[in-house]
Amino acid sequence: MADGPEEAGGEAPPVSDIAGDRLRSFIERIERLEEEKAALSADVREVYAEAKGNGFDTKIMRQIIKLRKMEQADRREQEELLDLYKKAIGMWE
Amino acid sequence: MADGPEEAGGEAPPVSDIAGDRLRSFIERIERLEEEKAALSADVREVYAEAKGNGFDTKIMRQIIKLRKMEQADRREQEELLDLYKKAIGMWE
Repeated sequence: MADGPEEAGGEAPPVSDIAGDRLRSFIERIERLEEEKAALSADVREVYAEAKGNGFDTKIMRQIIKLRKMEQADRREQEELLDLYKKAIGMWE
Repeated sequence: MADGPEEAGGEAPPVSDIAGDRLRSFIERIERLEEEKAALSADVREVYAEAKGNGFDTKIMRQIIKLRKMEQADRREQEELLDLYKKAIGMWE
């Protein structure tokens, strides 16, 4: 991060500078992704506000979304288990 | 959500069906946005994993990102306050 001792100029490459640039690049990538996530969160809030404006209760909507997510996870888990059992008894699709 | 009583066919439009479709549309929009958010979260995890693979301590990286976010928020707050004071004393840019 800080300026490396460029006057050193020996055999070893200026490792600290290279690492600093690489680190900054990682951090900036993460920050960009987090910004995109924040924008999506704002979009979600907007959709809820719009739904509310249409007379829907957003608390109940959140419950529905939670239930659907749980159902999807259950379904996926059951499918994986089904596959596992099929393979275990040598039953291929 | 459930099938409305279509045999009713009176003056009133089948409000429950329309509302159900609208509600489903809101819910599906939110679910799509949440999926995109989850994908971004996975991307963030990948970047951290890559950084770790490059020898960086991800806990410290998280602290740096937090600090940078706080600094940015502070800077923005100060700028807003500066604008407010400027306007308050009739000093326009």
